[in-house]
Amino acid sequence: MADSEALSSLAGDPVAVEALLQAVFGIVVDEAIQKGTSASQKVCEWKEPEELKQLLDLELRGQGESQEQILERCRAVIRYSVKTGHPRFFNQLFSGLDPHALAGRIITESLNTSQYTYEIAPVFVLMEEEVLRKLRALVGWSSGDGIFCPGGSISNMYAVNLARYQRYPDCKQRGLRTLPPLALFTSKECHYSIQKGAAFLGLGTDSVRVVKADERGRMVPEDLERQISMAEAEGAVPFLVSATSGTTVLGAFDPLEAIADVCQRHGLWLHVDAAWGGSVLLSQTHRHLLDGIQRADSVAWNPHKLLAAGLQCSALLLQDTSNLLKRCHGSQASYLFQQDKFYDVELDTGDKVVQCGRRVDCLKLWLMWKAQGSQGLERRIDQAFALAGYLVEEMKTREGFELVMEPEFVNVCFWFVPPSLRGKQDSPDYHKRLSKVAPVLKERMVKEGSMMIGYQPHGTRGNFFRVVVANPALTCADIDFLLNELERLGQDL
Amino acid sequence: MADSEALSSLAGDPVAVEALLQAVFGIVVDEAIQKGTSASQKVCEWKEPEELKQLLDLELRGQGESQEQILERCRAVIRYSVKTGHPRFFNQLFSGLDPHALAGRIITESLNTSQYTYEIAPVFVLMEEEVLRKLRALVGWSSGDGIFCPGGSISNMYAVNLARYQRYPDCKQRGLRTLPPLALFTSKECHYSIQKGAAFLGLGTDSVRVVKADERGRMVPEDLERQISMAEAEGAVPFLVSATSGTTVLGAFDPLEAIADVCQRHGLWLHVDAAWGGSVLLSQTHRHLLDGIQRADSVAWNPHKLLAAGLQCSALLLQDTSNLLKRCHGSQASYLFQQDKFYDVELDTGDKVVQCGRRVDCLKLWLMWKAQGSQGLERRIDQAFALAGYLVEEMKTREGFELVMEPEFVNVCFWFVPPSLRGKQDSPDYHKRLSKVAPVLKERMVKEGSMMIGYQPHGTRGNFFRVVVANPALTCADIDFLLNELERLGQDL
Repeated sequence: MADSEALSSLAGDPVAVEALLQAVFGIVVDEAIQKGTSASQKVCEWKEPEELKQLLDLELRGQGESQEQILERCRAVIRYSVKTGHPRFFNQLFSGLDPHALAGRIITESLNTSQYTYEIAPVFVLMEEEVLRKLRALVGWSSGDGIFCPGGSISNMYAVNLARYQRYPDCKQRGLRTLPPLALFTSKECHYSIQKGAAFLGLGTDSVRVVKADERGRMVPEDLERQISMAEAEGAVPFLVSATSGTTVLGAFDPLEAIADVCQRHGLWLHVDAAWGGSVLLSQTHRHLLDGIQRADSVAWNPHKLLAAGLQCSALLLQDTSNLLKRCHGSQASYLFQQDKFYDVELDTGDKVVQCGRRVDCLKLWLMWKAQGSQGLERRIDQAFALAGYLVEEMKTREGFELVMEPEFVNVCFWFVPPSLRGKQDSPDYHKRLSKVAPVLKERMVKEGSMMIGYQPHGTRGNFFRVVVANPALTCADIDFLLNELERLGQDL
Repeated sequence: MADSEALSSLAGDPVAVEALLQAVFGIVVDEAIQKGTSASQKVCEWKEPEELKQLLDLELRGQGESQEQILERCRAVIRYSVKTGHPRFFNQLFSGLDPHALAGRIITESLNTSQYTYEIAPVFVLMEEEVLRKLRALVGWSSGDGIFCPGGSISNMYAVNLARYQRYPDCKQRGLRTLPPLALFTSKECHYSIQKGAAFLGLGTDSVRVVKADERGRMVPEDLERQISMAEAEGAVPFLVSATSGTTVLGAFDPLEAIADVCQRHGLWLHVDAAWGGSVLLSQTHRHLLDGIQRADSVAWNPHKLLAAGLQCSALLLQDTSNLLKRCHGSQASYLFQQDKFYDVELDTGDKVVQCGRRVDCLKLWLMWKAQGSQGLERRIDQAFALAGYLVEEMKTREGFELVMEPEFVNVCFWFVPPSLRGKQDSPDYHKRLSKVAPVLKERMVKEGSMMIGYQPHGTRGNFFRVVVANPALTCADIDFLLNELERLGQDL
């Protein structure tokens, strides 16, 4: 066996390690960061899957490759990836590239630790606590608990699991079989993770009672009341309402005060899925959209969305001060959470989660916040609202853009009506033909690489575009481009 | 509102962005990568929590900070963090810093996309498929399915959920209430995530039947058979056995062939939790430890552990070719998984998971594999075994080191018997006193920053150390240091 030399390539050769990483970082800066955020470059370089497979030469072989080959692979990976930090990427509920958050992510990766104990993550245990405290303060809580989760869906599952455990602590040990049928309530506009979570947690999707939403996508509290009565009449036990602050498609905010009243009346856990809309709490101007959130029992909030902290950064916040998280999820593994440590083992927060190893998700948010201040982040939110407003007003001045509704938030939903369909609203196949426009335009923009906007059918509405105004680097010029480009791409339709 | 200028600090100023990131990267290279992996530097810089809070100045304020202040914060975060890539970090089931994997992680962070659709992750959808195919081939499967999960615990939960869905597809909709009581089986040495998962999934920890392990920590197949009969006699329906390849503390490998025979006889889903031991499949010399794994229905394997790919990199592999993952977890969200896309929507793998947004976890492993080749990774595994063997042999030549057992793997478990306890094995308080040694030595090594080794009580055994030999850069000199340092730290006890 090897004696004094390590066998892995580069390991033990600090000069070669540094040279490799400097070369890779140079490629990252040039290709992903500079070109990747430049409006003069493509947002994506579309390739058909089979062609892309050939270009990438994905196969993993016995022999390793030279540094030159590896660097070429790094360039290819970046070249053919979508540039989500690009000012013409409007496709998802995240967009943009915050340099401080990215700096935090690079440090996180270089330190590569797990968030379970103070022993191996002293800085991040304390930092997570402080970041969660700050997020809770914005919700309106002076105490409480919380944890960063691997995404908003899992945050939502945590909330459901905590609510059922609080009501039936026995279920941790004995499971659901001995419980009455449970019912949870959410609107038809909620994120699909509520359904997925109900299935995963063993409740089944039938346990999710779907509450009506109004024409703007907001839960109707009177229907919530009605659904609760119906569930009770059927012998089910209501235990949780999941309201949404910022729905996925329409960007609607459920009326939290009225929903909280209902929850209070029936003794139900109020969870607010603010994965998308939570960041609005930073804005004095717009935070009224979440009025009543301080009455929630739990809140899911993803700073990786509107705050551009980087995937993943998803906080579950709790009003609870009774150590519910740890009681519900803890299992006191003796190899990790030794009780005879030389420091306060309350700092070992890992037993609050259902995972074991857990990524450090706080540093990127913390560093960005330190650099921007709450005021800088507030300006970012206000700017996104202002630019969404600008987009809406511009649409009204142009032919061919039909809003699905006046947006409440930064999701701007609309149909692009191509020349051949204008003025034909009364023709019998208008809606069918209109529904085919967005997929065609999407294909064209992606193949040209000029921009990316998502579309979807929704209820009885045919396909419409959803522009998400989230990138903190956006300007009115980017909005103008978006409108002009849609007109250009759709002029022959 | 702003017209042509973006409000966020640095956004829209590519020169300033590059300057910041270059400065941060310089700090990362110097402090985290060079010093962080140098044996001449400390593995950790211990501070009491209150002092560390002061040093870090964690509070998030209204005003942002200057670039100079931000860079100082980056330095402080690294300074007070544990260096998990350091050659004296033996504390966890991951250690070391692979430069190619880190390069892959930095690229991943700079691209910041989500793994749900080909549309926004074309490279990574194809790459994940190829990496999973390669891992499956090492298990012994020429076809199948799989997905990267946020950690091994969630991989294990996925397996349990898939197994129950396969047997009772109705449970997705109707939940567990209508099912008979279910029983799953795992040994007392299994990872605690099996218990946590059973609670989270609504089965309850009572559904986990604990099978005996032999003196080396391996599941006893005869007791598995007995437990299955007992569960059936009590009216429960057995549905899954979770065997472990590489237990957390002792590093034991359950006898998979014999367990697979039992599963086959009873028609049970065989899951293998190879989160820790799976990487041994790369070694022709040692892969016999997992003989029989090809008979499993599912395998959890974390390349972020022994392969040092970086947290998180956790694959769930399935033998299934019936699209079970998607049937079990899918919910066909129309805003994400539109069916009228211009490409083959089978490439949109996001509906296979219970999350929505999902980190890209394949690139770091792929890039490292391309650079090292399977042969380089195999040498790394073989070297870890060889160094663990060296450690064991050296212990036998020194006074004061008592092995818990001859290790099967790279977990080396032992007591350090300090001078005052040597030859006192027969004294009535020997075990009580011996149990207090590891916590004292741990405190000393951490406060000096010289090395980190985990310890734990285990069954009826008092605290013993578990050295994990995983860092690919380790040499015999590091092992010698470890032994000498324990002797030095414990000489007065």
